[in-house]
Amino acid sequence: MKVQQTPMGTDIAATAPARRPGRPSGGVGGAEQRTRLIEAALALFARQGIVDTSLAAIAREAGVTPAMVHYYFKTRDHLIDVLIDERFMPLREALGDIFEQHRDDPVAALTAVARRFVEIGQRYPWFAPLWVRDVISEGGVLRQRMYERFGRENQEKAHAAIVRWQREGRLNAALEPSLLFQSLMGLTLLPLAAGPMWRFDPQKHRVAAEDIARHAVALITQGVGPVRAAG
Amino acid sequence: MKVQQTPMGTDIAATAPARRPGRPSGGVGGAEQRTRLIEAALALFARQGIVDTSLAAIAREAGVTPAMVHYYFKTRDHLIDVLIDERFMPLREALGDIFEQHRDDPVAALTAVARRFVEIGQRYPWFAPLWVRDVISEGGVLRQRMYERFGRENQEKAHAAIVRWQREGRLNAALEPSLLFQSLMGLTLLPLAAGPMWRFDPQKHRVAAEDIARHAVALITQGVGPVRAAG
Repeated sequence: MKVQQTPMGTDIAATAPARRPGRPSGGVGGAEQRTRLIEAALALFARQGIVDTSLAAIAREAGVTPAMVHYYFKTRDHLIDVLIDERFMPLREALGDIFEQHRDDPVAALTAVARRFVEIGQRYPWFAPLWVRDVISEGGVLRQRMYERFGRENQEKAHAAIVRWQREGRLNAALEPSLLFQSLMGLTLLPLAAGPMWRFDPQKHRVAAEDIARHAVALITQGVGPVRAAG
Repeated sequence: MKVQQTPMGTDIAATAPARRPGRPSGGVGGAEQRTRLIEAALALFARQGIVDTSLAAIAREAGVTPAMVHYYFKTRDHLIDVLIDERFMPLREALGDIFEQHRDDPVAALTAVARRFVEIGQRYPWFAPLWVRDVISEGGVLRQRMYERFGRENQEKAHAAIVRWQREGRLNAALEPSLLFQSLMGLTLLPLAAGPMWRFDPQKHRVAAEDIARHAVALITQGVGPVRAAG
């Protein structure tokens, strides 16, 4: 893993030997603390954005010393790479499976993707707000870093598949291929991210994750118009 | 208009008499300066959120002294009320007309609303990012303030109309009434807000506002599936 040499990181390298000698870096206590720091980072990034969150703030959120954060994550860039490897990539791989399963049925694939987004957003409360923030952020730290490390091959494959499905008449040809995936995320992750703000809304406070999934699937498979008997 | 008595506001009240005597508050220079400050506020609110933007930052953005901002807007709450009255309410009223015009054709109404959102977002670059930020913000300053001042009557009428259309078989009954409006905004304003971040995206940098509108309309009227000959 690439570790940036910032002045802060250098400080920490000097501090690190102060830790208990013989402490197992992969031991149970250490692993738990590391997980707690990752969760604190995700919660803060989701709440206030990556750019506005320092390693010191993550330490406060997790109730540990700044030195402890630096012991596990040398810099914020290092932490972001860890989040990508351990939290984002597994979610992305789970989506890839859906397209493998429904190679010739894009409607089934997109329906499954919409449902999967809702499941992920419900299971990991940081996911939806973090995604929305990254999408509208100048620079989009996570997005940029994923492109830097993994390139755009996945995006290009998905785009090519959408165009092929349109040509084959399996997918509505009037849709814009490069907007389709974001539309699914907007229909699922945006309301999930907004959900906690609906406490005082007389209509929306009763909307559950399963309503969001049902609504998104109804909209993308049937549109808003009256649904006629299936042909 | 309600003016909060903050210490800052009090300072300014003391500073205000220092302005040029006899200066016409509604004069051309004054109106231009006021407009410039409103534009600066909208740009900053859209870029970094309302909560993180002080009146002093707005003064810097507009290239005037903090005292000048306070001359026109006593507090940030006062400024927000001005934005609501002069910038948001006219847009909201324009949407109301659409529903009047298409009382019994919700598909035509929702299609027109999606197009109108794209027009507004294209014409006023602050609108889409400001809306997205407000939706995912704890407290949602704009949303809360509009509710405080105007109540929820409009939202409740819209909700009742959607439910009626569903009952009458004019609108897909599987949709969640309280999510429908937000879905339209997610399909139009979210990509518009993300647009400036697409400069380096090989596919998306070519997507124009009219593509966003066409895509949203195709999705909500036809869904993702192949489009059969109209019945």
